[in-house]
Amino acid sequence: MRTVAAYSAFAPGAPLIRDSVKRRDLRVDDVAVLVSHCGVCHSDLHALRDDAASFPLTPGHEFVGTVLDVGSGVTDFAPGDPVAVGNIVDSCGVCDMCAAEQENYCREFPTLTYGGRDRVDGSTTAGAFSAEYVVRDRFVYHRPEGLDAAAVAPLMCAGITVWEPLRRWNIGPGSRVGVAGIGGLGHLAVRFAAALGAEVTVFTTSSAKAEEARELGAHHTVLSTDDAAMAAVQGGLDLVVDCIPVAHDPQPYLASLALDGTLCLVGHLGSVSIETVDLLVGRKSVSSSGSGGRRHTQEMLDFCGDHGITAQVEVLPSALVGTAFDRLEAGDVRYRFVLDMGDLVGDGTPA
Amino acid sequence: MRTVAAYSAFAPGAPLIRDSVKRRDLRVDDVAVLVSHCGVCHSDLHALRDDAASFPLTPGHEFVGTVLDVGSGVTDFAPGDPVAVGNIVDSCGVCDMCAAEQENYCREFPTLTYGGRDRVDGSTTAGAFSAEYVVRDRFVYHRPEGLDAAAVAPLMCAGITVWEPLRRWNIGPGSRVGVAGIGGLGHLAVRFAAALGAEVTVFTTSSAKAEEARELGAHHTVLSTDDAAMAAVQGGLDLVVDCIPVAHDPQPYLASLALDGTLCLVGHLGSVSIETVDLLVGRKSVSSSGSGGRRHTQEMLDFCGDHGITAQVEVLPSALVGTAFDRLEAGDVRYRFVLDMGDLVGDGTPA
Repeated sequence: MRTVAAYSAFAPGAPLIRDSVKRRDLRVDDVAVLVSHCGVCHSDLHALRDDAASFPLTPGHEFVGTVLDVGSGVTDFAPGDPVAVGNIVDSCGVCDMCAAEQENYCREFPTLTYGGRDRVDGSTTAGAFSAEYVVRDRFVYHRPEGLDAAAVAPLMCAGITVWEPLRRWNIGPGSRVGVAGIGGLGHLAVRFAAALGAEVTVFTTSSAKAEEARELGAHHTVLSTDDAAMAAVQGGLDLVVDCIPVAHDPQPYLASLALDGTLCLVGHLGSVSIETVDLLVGRKSVSSSGSGGRRHTQEMLDFCGDHGITAQVEVLPSALVGTAFDRLEAGDVRYRFVLDMGDLVGDGTPA
Repeated sequence: MRTVAAYSAFAPGAPLIRDSVKRRDLRVDDVAVLVSHCGVCHSDLHALRDDAASFPLTPGHEFVGTVLDVGSGVTDFAPGDPVAVGNIVDSCGVCDMCAAEQENYCREFPTLTYGGRDRVDGSTTAGAFSAEYVVRDRFVYHRPEGLDAAAVAPLMCAGITVWEPLRRWNIGPGSRVGVAGIGGLGHLAVRFAAALGAEVTVFTTSSAKAEEARELGAHHTVLSTDDAAMAAVQGGLDLVVDCIPVAHDPQPYLASLALDGTLCLVGHLGSVSIETVDLLVGRKSVSSSGSGGRRHTQEMLDFCGDHGITAQVEVLPSALVGTAFDRLEAGDVRYRFVLDMGDLVGDGTPA
């Protein structure tokens, strides 16, 4: 057992403070990762305020680093390997979803990177706002050489969340893809869809983001507040990846779909109201998607390596984790904060 | 111009009475059909009570008969041919939906068989509760020999409405299909899905219908009021064709879907409320579908001819049209009323 430096909160709504967490001795199939960078996700913000969460809570579920050590049965990784880990660190491995390599939908619920229950010893998992992480080898991914490590971290949650719908709906050359909401998820959806060969239309409420969207690879931008512009794109898209993180009316995005088109809501929107006639005319679908399975996650990383794709990030020293959350909440980020965990030294014991 | 016998209503909510309607002289691409049978659909009931509908109103939009005469440019039909016609009698022919042979979603709105606006002369179309009908050749279908004519009529609306989702979601051997609600649409969905080679599960609230569902070809039946039975089918279906014609919670049917499964709502349900997490876990979709295009309609009829499939109907003399609507409203029909229009003689002028 090793004690490593970390940032934890001790009650719902409390700030993250410098702390330490214990990392288990390596099991036969474990990989110890020296964490270099960890992304800051909206879901971390929700978890930190969740009265039902288990505290102390150490967030962090999209991270990169290098392998420190491996268990005796690990053959796919060796010390020094560049790796990445996402929001899932284990699953039952035997249900239909796991058999389909969609461990993200494991019937027994996947073990989350933090706040999850370890399937072997029952302990609560502590996240990667820490100097090291120990994880089962099946949920460690090879990180392509040549990509900026910090900018890879957000691929592991934001990235895979939008990669999966693009793959599920067979996006490629000739596809017409809309992306609504340009933030941590949306900006990666644009980069991915463009690199897959699709014609990409971005919906945004912000003229500034419309300009940025073109730089990300969008071919068209539509101000969603402009009724005439919205009317002009009606019926033209095969898939809209809706990354808007707050409740909104899906109707305008359904209207933008072509025959057999799909609106995939990746935000956690709770209950949404759909008029069946908006689905019927054009036989459209509404779907959702969350996180991703092992096969698609490695596929996405390899694709990013081949195409030189990473997230657009702002890297902050780990000690500024509070600033990162404040600015994230204010929407003041292009497009993802990443904390530099390489500056975490020692075991976290107060000096 | 010919005057033919018909049944019409003269005000919202008023009964249908013996009447006459005018049928146009044949245009170059017209087909005159001697109507032998016409199905009675829930949507007729709605139309007859619709304050916004145009009266007098002659219903009837799923009918069969034989060709009486053809326009000078018609090459695909000849007098005496057995034919069938559905709820669409024209479309713009040039929009993307028409180009995709989904005239049912024509951007300029398809011309409906009754209560529609003729695209040539602007007149209001009068339906097939009448002795004859004149229709553009593109929307006339070859009716397979060997099938009972009366039992073919409901294929033209109820049938195509459930055929389209089965084809859209590639149902065939190995597919696991659920059908919710066994009525005019649902019983045909069961017959079609079974004939396509799928494993069919029927959801019903009625033990009696569960027994009937097996006779229709269902492999499994589930009482939707039985929580344990509903739990047992969770995650097992690729497609659920939901034919329930009244507002209901879609959640139990979403729960029955496997990874990437689809719930297709074919009832006119208005607004439905969906929990995004019910879509997210398993990456499920909610869709809808209405009527069908020319290509799929003929394909369905040919499939029915090949497999000996028709609707289960109760044929009534046309004069009992009021009884048919009363019993339809009371749910007292297995599974579709069809009116015998062959008994309509004369021009409808009161004797």
